[in-house]
Amino acid sequence: MDLSTVETPCLVLDRGKLEKNIASINQRMATLGVNLRPHGKTAKNIDILKMALDGQQGGITVSTLKEADYYFSHGITDMVYAVGIAPVKLNRIAGLIKKGASITILLDSIAQAKFVAAKGQEHGLTIPALIEIDCDGHRSGVTLDDPLLVDIGHVLHREKGMALRGVLTHAGGSYQCQTVEAIRAIAETERHTAVACSEVLRQNGLPCPIVSVGSTPTASYAEDLTGITEVRAGVYMFYDLVMAGLGVCKERDIAISVLASVIGHQKRKNWVITDAGWMALSRDRGTASQKVDQGYGTVCNLNGDPLDDLIVSATNQEHGIISDRSGGALAWDSFEIGSMVRVLPNHACATAAMYDRYYVTDGSTEISDVWHRVNGW
Amino acid sequence: MDLSTVETPCLVLDRGKLEKNIASINQRMATLGVNLRPHGKTAKNIDILKMALDGQQGGITVSTLKEADYYFSHGITDMVYAVGIAPVKLNRIAGLIKKGASITILLDSIAQAKFVAAKGQEHGLTIPALIEIDCDGHRSGVTLDDPLLVDIGHVLHREKGMALRGVLTHAGGSYQCQTVEAIRAIAETERHTAVACSEVLRQNGLPCPIVSVGSTPTASYAEDLTGITEVRAGVYMFYDLVMAGLGVCKERDIAISVLASVIGHQKRKNWVITDAGWMALSRDRGTASQKVDQGYGTVCNLNGDPLDDLIVSATNQEHGIISDRSGGALAWDSFEIGSMVRVLPNHACATAAMYDRYYVTDGSTEISDVWHRVNGW
Repeated sequence: MDLSTVETPCLVLDRGKLEKNIASINQRMATLGVNLRPHGKTAKNIDILKMALDGQQGGITVSTLKEADYYFSHGITDMVYAVGIAPVKLNRIAGLIKKGASITILLDSIAQAKFVAAKGQEHGLTIPALIEIDCDGHRSGVTLDDPLLVDIGHVLHREKGMALRGVLTHAGGSYQCQTVEAIRAIAETERHTAVACSEVLRQNGLPCPIVSVGSTPTASYAEDLTGITEVRAGVYMFYDLVMAGLGVCKERDIAISVLASVIGHQKRKNWVITDAGWMALSRDRGTASQKVDQGYGTVCNLNGDPLDDLIVSATNQEHGIISDRSGGALAWDSFEIGSMVRVLPNHACATAAMYDRYYVTDGSTEISDVWHRVNGW
Repeated sequence: MDLSTVETPCLVLDRGKLEKNIASINQRMATLGVNLRPHGKTAKNIDILKMALDGQQGGITVSTLKEADYYFSHGITDMVYAVGIAPVKLNRIAGLIKKGASITILLDSIAQAKFVAAKGQEHGLTIPALIEIDCDGHRSGVTLDDPLLVDIGHVLHREKGMALRGVLTHAGGSYQCQTVEAIRAIAETERHTAVACSEVLRQNGLPCPIVSVGSTPTASYAEDLTGITEVRAGVYMFYDLVMAGLGVCKERDIAISVLASVIGHQKRKNWVITDAGWMALSRDRGTASQKVDQGYGTVCNLNGDPLDDLIVSATNQEHGIISDRSGGALAWDSFEIGSMVRVLPNHACATAAMYDRYYVTDGSTEISDVWHRVNGW
């Protein structure tokens, strides 16, 4: 099957770029001497996660219990569920643990520790838990200076039904960096904060075998990971325009694209209309706050070659509008009605989430595989 | 089953509000003496579309062929596929027609008319087609002053394999209106342009039995639909914060909400953290350009009662941050860890698209039904 014959819009994955991106980060982690715990939230596919686990210790990160069920059913047992735990999710987690999964949960409050302990006791299980650390103020977690860190640690360590396994932090603030130097600095803050929190726990007689950090930008630019036991990242497998805007990758490294058909010309406006609207591209406008606003994505031809200065400048639900950044006239012959283009995404996680499958190519337009995704919760 | 026991995030549909919204638009259409062809792109569910067809002639609108397959498999035969046709989709359309569907396609170019004719001839079918009209410059279509209108009409009427059925326009520009008066004006422009195009076709000896207009804002405020044979709308079934911001509905009319668990407190920042991030709410920020920016949605308690001035001010993939508009302190006792809130969406189509089902309630927290959605293409 060839891309030119599949129904649009659909999601294309370039296997060669995927393999190169994975090999590159794995090499970095080997050089830095740390295990990578790949995040399954971007790919949501077992074939890709198996590739990402090459040379690693075998554990992954998940963002939903649907991912946990799915990856476990495909043979991955060691998982960190890296979203603060809610009570309504504990029965499902207990079920996974009873089936043989080693699923570690995350929390940042005494209240959570208490209901985890109660659920572990109810099921006769010891639920492993990490304390979430706030290293950059962007979201959840306990700060290094907060006595709550040790208080939670004591509850986790003391109560039956759960076990303190360590600390976890995520430098989500790295997505807003403007320079590589800023990413390097935040990577060191992420490392230092996690390690310092682990030392506080140990100084208080508490165990802290896991010291987990990660984000694709910090994983790409960290220069020292002393004291860190594992790094989590997910977007690096595909990369996207936000990562390219941050300097974390080149646009040519982006492994996924949305295949779209040209369905109209508005010549007075210099618009090409396609059938890839926001339902196909997602509503993510992550590059809007970067130096170069890429609209809803940059445009390539069917072969994946970039068409300079063309972006998807606007979308409706099932319509995309392609225009030249400068507002100039388009080469209409290159966009015959029924011809196809490929759009590189602002944010790989958000765009891929609109699809239930990848059409995998080896760089040509021939489809070598169809890989499924597990969306939802 | 009760909402308080289901896993979060999930999508809740208030059946009473849904029924009221549908009855209200159907009453308007009856008063204006026009048939409603409800759009299946928002609900993507047969139970809801059957309710929307109450008192109408039985035809619907679809935005994807997945919807067409699905609604046809549930007994709806008359469908307008209201996105400009692409060649790769014609075999699937021919297959539906052969199975007994009456599926009308949309186009705005001679090139499309030619490949539709070829496909119709190949399959021995007559594919019905509408010419897309551009009434407000927001997207696709032929303008009233463009001789292409009649040229396309002649090709559609003359060539074997297809048939000219009329004209269709969509006042998408109505979503950017700032006042009800502006919506009324654009509704009249939508009507007038479609009717004038139908007259041009007829004056040129071409048939134009269908004159189709529609958008939820214009359907809500049109005062005269003389010459129009059908109105298309979809968002009105659920409404959303964008529609409330336009004055098309009240916030209390919004029939869908995202149920979320509280998973953290950041008291120094006056943030409540939930497990409904952009994956659960969508990346849609449609209210950002309105008078009141509602962030990623406004917050209600578990019962659906609004919590004044609380919005989801920021999101990550699986995390939402609730804060007070004014930055003030939150009533922490109302947001215990593990308690639940409901978030009203900016854009019903985008938020609902993140889910494969609705948990249907009758106004209480008891779940009376689970209705499935058909996402994808």
